[in-house]
Amino acid sequence: MALGEAEADLAIINGSVVNVYNSEIEKASVLIKGERIAYVGNDTARSIGAKTKVIDAAGKTLVPGFIDGHTHIDGPYSISGILSYAIAGGTTTIVTEVSDVGSVLGYEGIVQFLASIKDQPAKVFVVVPPLVTLSPVTEEHAITVPQLRRLLRRKNVLGLGEVYWGDVVNGQRRALDLIAETVRQGKKVEGHSAGATGKKLQAYVSSGVSSCHEPISAEEVKERIKLGLFILIREGAVRRELEAISQIKDDDNAISRLAISTDGVTPEQLISDGYMEFVVQKAINLGFEPIRAIQMATVNVARYFAMDDDIGGIAPGKYADIAVIPNLKTIKAEYVISNGRLVSQNGQVLIPPREHRYPRSLWNTVHLARDFTADDFAIPVEGHRLKVRLIDQVTNLVTREEFVDMPATDGQLKADVGQDILKVAAIESSYGTGQSFVGLIRGLGLKRGAMATTDVWDCGDIIAVGADETDMARAVNRTRELGGGSVVCAGGRIVAELALPVAGEISTEPMETIAEKFRRIQEAVTELGGSSPNFGLTLAVLPSPAIPFLRICESGLFNLRENSFVDLIVG
Amino acid sequence: MALGEAEADLAIINGSVVNVYNSEIEKASVLIKGERIAYVGNDTARSIGAKTKVIDAAGKTLVPGFIDGHTHIDGPYSISGILSYAIAGGTTTIVTEVSDVGSVLGYEGIVQFLASIKDQPAKVFVVVPPLVTLSPVTEEHAITVPQLRRLLRRKNVLGLGEVYWGDVVNGQRRALDLIAETVRQGKKVEGHSAGATGKKLQAYVSSGVSSCHEPISAEEVKERIKLGLFILIREGAVRRELEAISQIKDDDNAISRLAISTDGVTPEQLISDGYMEFVVQKAINLGFEPIRAIQMATVNVARYFAMDDDIGGIAPGKYADIAVIPNLKTIKAEYVISNGRLVSQNGQVLIPPREHRYPRSLWNTVHLARDFTADDFAIPVEGHRLKVRLIDQVTNLVTREEFVDMPATDGQLKADVGQDILKVAAIESSYGTGQSFVGLIRGLGLKRGAMATTDVWDCGDIIAVGADETDMARAVNRTRELGGGSVVCAGGRIVAELALPVAGEISTEPMETIAEKFRRIQEAVTELGGSSPNFGLTLAVLPSPAIPFLRICESGLFNLRENSFVDLIVG
Repeated sequence: MALGEAEADLAIINGSVVNVYNSEIEKASVLIKGERIAYVGNDTARSIGAKTKVIDAAGKTLVPGFIDGHTHIDGPYSISGILSYAIAGGTTTIVTEVSDVGSVLGYEGIVQFLASIKDQPAKVFVVVPPLVTLSPVTEEHAITVPQLRRLLRRKNVLGLGEVYWGDVVNGQRRALDLIAETVRQGKKVEGHSAGATGKKLQAYVSSGVSSCHEPISAEEVKERIKLGLFILIREGAVRRELEAISQIKDDDNAISRLAISTDGVTPEQLISDGYMEFVVQKAINLGFEPIRAIQMATVNVARYFAMDDDIGGIAPGKYADIAVIPNLKTIKAEYVISNGRLVSQNGQVLIPPREHRYPRSLWNTVHLARDFTADDFAIPVEGHRLKVRLIDQVTNLVTREEFVDMPATDGQLKADVGQDILKVAAIESSYGTGQSFVGLIRGLGLKRGAMATTDVWDCGDIIAVGADETDMARAVNRTRELGGGSVVCAGGRIVAELALPVAGEISTEPMETIAEKFRRIQEAVTELGGSSPNFGLTLAVLPSPAIPFLRICESGLFNLRENSFVDLIVG
Repeated sequence: MALGEAEADLAIINGSVVNVYNSEIEKASVLIKGERIAYVGNDTARSIGAKTKVIDAAGKTLVPGFIDGHTHIDGPYSISGILSYAIAGGTTTIVTEVSDVGSVLGYEGIVQFLASIKDQPAKVFVVVPPLVTLSPVTEEHAITVPQLRRLLRRKNVLGLGEVYWGDVVNGQRRALDLIAETVRQGKKVEGHSAGATGKKLQAYVSSGVSSCHEPISAEEVKERIKLGLFILIREGAVRRELEAISQIKDDDNAISRLAISTDGVTPEQLISDGYMEFVVQKAINLGFEPIRAIQMATVNVARYFAMDDDIGGIAPGKYADIAVIPNLKTIKAEYVISNGRLVSQNGQVLIPPREHRYPRSLWNTVHLARDFTADDFAIPVEGHRLKVRLIDQVTNLVTREEFVDMPATDGQLKADVGQDILKVAAIESSYGTGQSFVGLIRGLGLKRGAMATTDVWDCGDIIAVGADETDMARAVNRTRELGGGSVVCAGGRIVAELALPVAGEISTEPMETIAEKFRRIQEAVTELGGSSPNFGLTLAVLPSPAIPFLRICESGLFNLRENSFVDLIVG
């Protein structure tokens, strides 16, 4: 075709083409045959014929389709929901974790997620979640080395998902085995080295980790680049680091080992800001050279994942994944081409993502034998005054442990709204064991009511907190009725809810509906006194070994510094 | 280990460590456990114990072991022969073509070569030769798609070897199928785009080619980088391009997509100059920043081949492949560590490469049914004067076609030493077909005698040239007696020879002996009037489709411009 012996299927003519390989911009036309680019240049006369669809990009700029190299799209939206926003904004490739669905359904959940990303108008690749968990129940259902080996054989599986550094440095056997297997297969091991430094960081990296998306400062970036890690700067739902890291915006050497990624976006962010186009625009606004910002969202990611023969640049032989934008500093996709097809124009999706029919096994994964009652949230104790270990909420993510003296009432420990001490429960709901644990948490602010959710990190539990045990029970029971979801109750009444009936993590409703329901949940919790700006996230991370340092699961309280379960009653 | 909870096996202390990731140099010690690096830094006290072997590198510089990303080591030396020179000079990884052995033995030859590189003190990886050939006989035994698929499954097979651009652009079906299969497997397709430009180059690249080692100027490098290709600059036996390409020594953007490689080295070069250390030193001498020269021979190659999680830098988790050199500008290995072991010191090999026992099937691959006689080199013709197409040798590699009027003598065309017209024969010797072809060649200079060799490119033929048919027969018969090799005859006497009894390509003699025999062959040919500075190479490339433009094989003369066989007698 490049020889002019055949006609192009699609031609994008007269635009300015951003070349991520030589960092230059060239006035040129792009000829596309099938899914791939055949030619980039100005000698196109004989290749544009009657059957060629032509897009006139005069005055506009062509950039490679964006790649999100680290994110979580296995909820709360469906695959078609997120992909619609992705392609509308110019993102044509996503590399995602599957830790949410994986925590609930293990290997089967990952396999089913892989089915959902097939035959979509954008490329989705997966890293296999190691499912490192504090929960002994979830651990029993976590991914095994033979399961990982099977998954790594798939072309759309790029490696092992984020492995928290603490587990590796503590010598968690399964985590080390999964890493070793991935290294053996020559695939990527995604890192998660939040806060690690010096010898501990080196010990972590020496296990075989290839990347990290956790640096929050230029210094942390530099320490990791020096160790050979590839860095994905995070700008999304959980944290935003671009501004702090923009200090190194002129360090081309560092930038060649950097990507920008989302680490997950909320429905609300998708609607108000968009997806990767927002991150690229923000990098430019923060002073990164536009070409560098684009490279960090395209070729650098492709190269890191060893996919740069296929994607990441506009050149012959690459997949025709292209966004046409007004100019280099305005990241707003007017046309989006993915796999050689015009999939979106001016924000309107022309080729809608396939709505995946999630199989029966993914629905209604809340396995509780019976309804809960207020009594299920009692903490029976002996004695009148006790020294109690409670979870002290320091930020909306981080906790520490605190010891307080509490009185027993009717042989029980009660929530104490005056001291901002609430009940917190972790209820194993994915594997039917019926195990649960009730503790105490300080700093969440609720004056009344309760919230429960199946949308939690790193285990298959429901997390519930409340000022009132009856509301906690009502909320838990309602998540069960919904087949999964997040529920706020007050005065025995449901005041806000979002059903997540697929794996307890995914809603199949429209993005606007999901966002609105999230908004109402947050509004309702705030009205009940909740102080976290993202109360759902605060609950979600309570069982996660990723965040310091006193956590909870169905088997009790876990102190990450001591790497062991610890008692609620200490004296 | 990095945590200081175990002792290092090997510690290289007090040196200056070149960090290819941040382009900086740090005074640090390197701790090694098993095959890999555990720690790089200065907090080593608790990790160096009684069982730790310590190398004091005070005042010296540590660089990653060099990687040759494009070469040919499947002859004329044995695998242990070349690897001894490699490790002595600081090269710890080689990516090689297997086209020489492959041409003679096809799939079986490649499998046997893969056996030879196992369990060696340096890493050797292979790209599968497509064995694109002009010879219909060799083509019948060339690699098939199912064979390629089997080979690509191996971890030490990185992709498809160099595919000449002409064949791709001409639509050679098997070449295109092999490329498509390699792209499907996500592995690399090594390019060979000598002289291609513009639309033809883009058509070639769009087939799926990932790299090129053929650019001979900065302009050619730039045109290829723009198309997304990775460039391996060649500095070795066939050509030397570093000087010309050193024009871009300050273009960091281009350099990030460049490697330096040998494309093959002769025994004489190994002995006099060394291996990759010579290429790196030359780049530095030509003005490349030393750190860039080192990156072009280490991390850049590793990244291109998607091996940079394992090799290419000195960092925790990477294989401990390290050369200790006097300083950044003096590339002379004082210690070489490969896979964590000290393999060489001051040029002395401490862990000798394994001498591979080549199996019976690789020996004596010259399959000629009988001895040749002078009559076998006759060119019988009808008529008295004929218009003849002869091969006109323009440089020692390039040929063109020339038409001359020649008289017939006794019903034959004879060599005409006065006009510098010799006989040239291509004799199929690998597959037992007994096919051969005799033509005429001008410009080789021989006044008497003959030379024959099994050491030829891209087909399984013997090539013989001579001023005398009896000497040609004697030379061919002697190569048969040797089981393969290169032989010079004059006056019915063998005046110089090198046996290549393994696959007709490999000598198992010491490197010095091979070099000396090559020297004597060249000396002998020169004495007979031979004008090529490397007469053996001139014969070797005569059947190659890689070099313009009138070539020869057992089936006749082949005109590359017309992409077809052409007649010897044209009128």
